[in-house]
Formats: sequence, C-alpha cells, structure tokens
Amino acid sequence: MVFKKITLIGTSDESFEQAVDDAVERADETLDNVKWVEVEEMGVELASVETREYQAEVEVAFELEG
Amino acid sequence: MVFKKITLIGTSDESFEQAVDDAVERADETLDNVKWVEVEEMGVELASVETREYQAEVEVAFELEG
Amino acid sequence: MVFKKITLIGTSDESFEQAVDDAVERADETLDNVKWVEVEEMGVELASVETREYQAEVEVAFELEG
Amino acid sequence: MVFKKITLIGTSDESFEQAVDDAVERADETLDNVKWVEVEEMGVELASVETREYQAEVEVAFELEG
Amino acid sequence: MVFKKITLIGTSDESFEQAVDDAVERADETLDNVKWVEVEEMGVELASVETREYQAEVEVAFELEG
Amino acid sequence: MVFKKITLIGTSDESFEQAVDDAVERADETLDNVKWVEVEEMGVELASVETREYQAEVEVAFELEG
Amino acid sequence: MVFKKITLIGTSDESFEQAVDDAVERADETLDNVKWVEVEEMGVELASVETREYQAEVEVAFELEG
Amino acid sequence: MVFKKITLIGTSDESFEQAVDDAVERADETLDNVKWVEVEEMGVELASVETREYQAEVEVAFELEG
Amino acid sequence: MVFKKITLIGTSDESFEQAVDDAVERADETLDNVKWVEVEEMGVELASVETREYQAEVEVAFELEG
Amino acid sequence: MVFKKITLIGTSDESFEQAVDDAVERADETLDNVKWVEVEEMGVELASVETREYQAEVEVAFELEG
Amino acid sequence: MVFKKITLIGTSDESFEQAVDDAVERADETLDNVKWVEVEEMGVELASVETREYQAEVEVAFELEG
Amino acid sequence: MVFKKITLIGTSDESFEQAVDDAVERADETLDNVKWVEVEEMGVELASVETREYQAEVEVAFELEG
Repeated sequence: MVFKKITLIGTSDESFEQAVDDAVERADETLDNVKWVEVEEMGVELASVETREYQAEVEVAFELEG
Repeated sequence: MVFKKITLIGTSDESFEQAVDDAVERADETLDNVKWVEVEEMGVELASVETREYQAEVEVAFELEG
Repeated sequence: MVFKKITLIGTSDESFEQAVDDAVERADETLDNVKWVEVEEMGVELASVETREYQAEVEVAFELEG
Repeated sequence: MVFKKITLIGTSDESFEQAVDDAVERADETLDNVKWVEVEEMGVELASVETREYQAEVEVAFELEG
Repeated sequence: MVFKKITLIGTSDESFEQAVDDAVERADETLDNVKWVEVEEMGVELASVETREYQAEVEVAFELEG
Repeated sequence: MVFKKITLIGTSDESFEQAVDDAVERADETLDNVKWVEVEEMGVELASVETREYQAEVEVAFELEG
Repeated sequence: MVFKKITLIGTSDESFEQAVDDAVERADETLDNVKWVEVEEMGVELASVETREYQAEVEVAFELEG
Repeated sequence: MVFKKITLIGTSDESFEQAVDDAVERADETLDNVKWVEVEEMGVELASVETREYQAEVEVAFELEG
Repeated sequence: MVFKKITLIGTSDESFEQAVDDAVERADETLDNVKWVEVEEMGVELASVETREYQAEVEVAFELEG
Repeated sequence: MVFKKITLIGTSDESFEQAVDDAVERADETLDNVKWVEVEEMGVELASVETREYQAEVEVAFELEG
Repeated sequence: MVFKKITLIGTSDESFEQAVDDAVERADETLDNVKWVEVEEMGVELASVETREYQAEVEVAFELEG
Repeated sequence: MVFKKITLIGTSDESFEQAVDDAVERADETLDNVKWVEVEEMGVELASVETREYQAEVEVAFELEG
C-alpha cells in the first residue's frame, strides 16, 4: 500500500473550511481514494477590504492503486 | 505559579472552531483552570468526499494548583 | 515596488475568519494598499469555557508608496 | 471523538523499530485504544562504541473514552 | 537538467527501510531516472499492538527528460 | 527503559533560571526520576513595566518505572 | 479557483537566478498558467572547484483549469 | 481588540534578562499597553573574550487603542 | 543600545541581489543607522514566462537612537 | 565540562542503523569520549533501484578534554 | 573574509550566561578571532533536583585567517 | 564511505554566488574531495548603503578518506 500526496491551494470568499473543501472537490474530480488532508498554510488575498478571498494550502493524500 | 500543557485532537463535521471547542470541552471535564489553547495542526479526515471530519490538534494550557 | 509587512493579532468571539478580519480592518484604518495576509498562529483565550476568544496572529502586507 | 497525544522515548540495543515498539508496548500497558505513533527524534546513546542504545522519541496518540 | 520531486508514503509491517523501499519500487514502475530519496516523516499505524504498520513519507527525486 | 516527557511552564520574577527551577520543583513533587529538561520557549508577561514575570516553557523528561 | 504546486530543481552553471529560470522554463513547456515560484532550497554541486552547478529547489504554482 | 507585535534586539553586558529588559524599556518610552514579550533569539557579540554583549531578540506585543 | 527590525519585500526584474538592494534603499530613505539585512524568503512572480519579477523578503535591522 | 558536536554522514547498503554506526565508527577512530549521536536527516541514494545506499546525517557529540 | 562556525555545549551549575561563557572560553583557548555566538538550545541536566547543570548549545563564529 | 560537513560564511561585495564561491575556495585550500554545498542563510552587512557585503552561510560536505 502506497499513498501519494499533492499540494493544492483552494479558495473561498466565506471561510477557511470552504477553501479546504474547494481543494478537496477539485482533487476528487481526477483522483480516486482521497484519504486525508493536511492544512499547510492559510492566508487572505485582498482585492479590496470588502472582498476577501480566503485561501488554504493543503496536502491531499490518496492511495495509489496496486 | 506553574502551568501544564497537554495535547488533544478535537473533531467536528462542521468547522475548525468546533473541532477546537470539542477538545476544550473534553479538557474541561477533568481539568480545572484551563487558560488558553494553541492550534498546532489542522486537517480533514475523509471517509467519502461528502462526509468530512475537521480535526484540530491543540495544546491546552491549565494552571496547576499550588 | 516595495512591500512592508506588519504583525497584528485580531480577536473574535465567533470564528478564526472574524479574528483575521478584525486585524485587517484595523490595518485598513491607517494603511493604504493592503494586499494580502498570512496566518501565522491561531489560538483561543479562555476566560471561562463558555466564553472563548478566538485569536489569529497575521502578517499584513501592504505596498509602500513610491 | 477526542484523541490525546503523549510523548515517550523508547530504547533498544538493536534497532530504531525496536525502540519505537518499546515505547508502544509501555503505552499499551496503561492506555486503551492506542491508534498511531509519530517519530519525532532518533538518536544513539553511547556508553562505549561497542554498546549502543538506539532511542526513538515518539508521540503516541490514543482515543479518549466518551 | 531539471529534477522533479514527488511525495509518497510507503508502508511495511517489518521496518522503516522496507517502507522506504516500498515507496521507491512504486515510483520505479512509472518513472525513469529515480535519483535519490529524502525521508520526511516516519510513523506507525496500529490496528492492534501486535500488528504494526511502519510508514515512511519520502520525497522521491527523478530527472526529467530533456 | 522508557522515558516520558511532559510540558510545564514555570514562572519567576527574577530570572529564566528560576523559572526553569520553578517547573522542575513542581515536577519533582509528583514524579520520581526526573532526568533532564529542555527549554522550549521563553517569554515575559508584563503587568506593568516595573513588575515582570519571566516564563520558561520546558519539557521535563523522567524515567518510567519498569 | 484552485492552484496546484509542484516541486522542481533547476540547475545552472552561472547563478541562482538562472537555476530558478531553468525550472520555470521546464514547467512552462507542459503547464499553462504558471503564476508564481517559491525558492525552497539552494545549493551547489561540485564536480571540481572550477566547475560548479548552482541548484535551486522551487515550488511552482499554477492555476488549474475550471 | 487588536494587538501589534514589533521586533526589538536589546543588549546588556550582564545577562539575557537585562537584554530583554533593555528592549522592553525602550518600547515603553513610545508605546502604551505593552502586554507580553516573546524571546526569539539569543546571542553574544564579542569584542574581546573579556567584554561580552548579551543580546536578546524579542517580539514585543502591545494593545492598539480602539 | 537597542535595534529594531522591520520586514520589507523588495522587487527586481534582474536578480535577487537587486531585490534585496531595492528593499534596503527604501529603508534608507526613512531610517538612519541601517546595520544589516537577513534574507527570509525568495520567490518569483510571473506575469508571463518572459517577464519575471524576483522578490526578496528581508528583515532590515537598524539602531534606535538613544 | 565542554562538549563539541560535529556533523557526519554515514552510509550503508543495508539499514539506517548501519549508516549511523558507520558514522560513529569513523568518529571513534580520531575522537575520544564520544557520548551521543542525534539523527538529523535520512535518505537513500539510488544508483539503480536494486542497489540502494542508506544514508544518515548525524551530529556526533564528544567531551573535550579539560 | 571567511568565517567558520563550530558547535559547542558549555555547562554551568549557576546560570545560562555562565554556560555560554564556558563554551566561549574553551573556544578561545584554541581559536583566534572569535566574533559572535548564537544560542541554539538550552537545557538542564539533573543528577538530583538539588544539583542542576545548566547547559547551552552554541554556535561559535570566528574569522579564518587569510 | 563517510562524509563530513562544516559550516562556513563566505562574503562578497557583488553577489550571493560569489559569497558562496568565496566559502568553497577557502574550503578547497585545506580539504580534499569537496562534494556539495547547501546554502543555510543569506544576508547583507551594511557599512553604508553604498557599500554592501553579501554573505552566505553554507554547509560544505566533503568525503573523508578511508
């Protein structure tokens, strides 16, 4: 059993949870067997102070097929 | 005055705040004088992409009685 | 083009996003051209287990005027 | 569901795996529900160059009962 | 000459060396020119105290073809 | 031979050495076989600039009985 | 909007800037929308003291298509 | 409530505590509401082996006025 | 003698040295007694692969007047 | 009593323990009073997937003579 | 101008400053041009709780002769 | 085969590459078999803003003779 980890950065204008979910959903479109996610960095990109983009850099781990 | 820190991992299916609260409430059942919490790691365990478990590893600091 | 970064700690009794927003709004009162924010630390200050203060230490980056 | 982590240092005169196992077995005598172990540090204590004590500092995670 | 690094987690029920080898062999099935491996994390997953799964998270570096 | 490490924060209004000693003495009241201490963090809490509380977060290692 | 990061090691016999550029150009052959690069490690491989190979390990971030 | 942190390096020819105090006193001349200090680095500058200057790099946190 | 450190990010389209210099020159316009600079992070912002902006995040240390 | 630490990288084609031992034995040829070893990094150099060289970077501590 | 850094661990039964001084004095017996010292780790070795040995691991930097 | 690593700080008034080369050349005068260099820290010492000394702290690895 071997796992692989890739690094994604999800974005959301509402919360860090949604930014994490954003990355997981993108991973799920092309990968099977996503197992866990580790949050590496969090930040906010500011176009203006009213519109904020929450960002979460995550490592997504999935099991490679045998 | 001496403080002690222990490491707990709280879980929630809604948000990182609730995962932190989960750990704090558990600490509060057996410890007096909980003072502060430091978030060490955050992650998500995925049974399926629809059901996510937010996890927060925290250090809980409390004052030891004299 | 030169950016400067300062370190602020925002607080909220509701969520880590609000604690981050709290710091950004304070920065925005005195600084122009705030560009991005990096979350450095997160924690919770506990007066009692019922009343929690979520805290987010952030680095706020803004562009210096030429 | 809340997990707790404690830090142990196991020792062995043969290998790092045995030093890890040494810590796990000790944890297992007093704790139920040990789930995983993270290796934090490895080292060797030398009484003489012939007799070496392999050491592994590990974090042992176990599930707290509800 | 450009190298690429990917992150794999190999597993073994015997030792950390075998867990590293497990990841290398998997990389070798799909990649040419694997050059070196850096061990990032080591841990043990415990189903029961008798059956332990040694895990090694490694970065595998390989040379990209020109 | 297995060691355990716990995290304490000692305090003193005179020096970092006394803050470390404060934590060691507290550990010694309830633990046998304290072997060594590693300083993790140092800080100062300020009620006013005249009265300072030096703090030392330390890991205290002790040998578990066989 | 989701970004992905991959890790490359570029090489040059002249400077660290060229080693970084080397990695970016390689990424650009197969990836669209490369946005930014973070330098993780720098080193020099020495065949002899006269011929030096500057190396830069970088993380290359690019935007995934929707 | 928002806090700001600044980085100062205090110096003393006697001890690390005095080097920390040196930085705090300087902060106190221009800032109100200094709350706590975190020691980041410690070192010694040596003009000669007899005359040593103890240095402490600290982060000074103070509350911003509302 | 007390030093203060601030964090700047200089930019250049030629090299990391020029990005560092860019930050130092900006600091020099408003600060006396700049003493040393520590490079914290380096990166490249890419508008297109042909036009690259080298960036250097630095800590600039200067002596505060007595 | 003063200790000195030096950094060695031992190699073995069998295991990480042998790579550590390789470094210790080399240190022992020229140094008296080797006391302990801290493992800093572990990796594998691959000439081919069949022939692997396990490497262990260690810090070797020894007591200086009075 | 080239500097070299070596790692020493000084000891004292009184304070961390004396442990640092202990290492510096030892370096000074065999090295010319010692310039600065960086404190890397601090700890306490405990034979018994009454007799404590303060330890300071330091990097000692000195200028190599041309 | 055993490697040893030493820490040098090279200096240059032109670039970080020259500061690295400065350290390598110094190592090469007294050591055989220098194999690779890892850049640990980079900084600039400022006598005045016009005259800058680029510094690179590097670890130099060389093979010990059998």
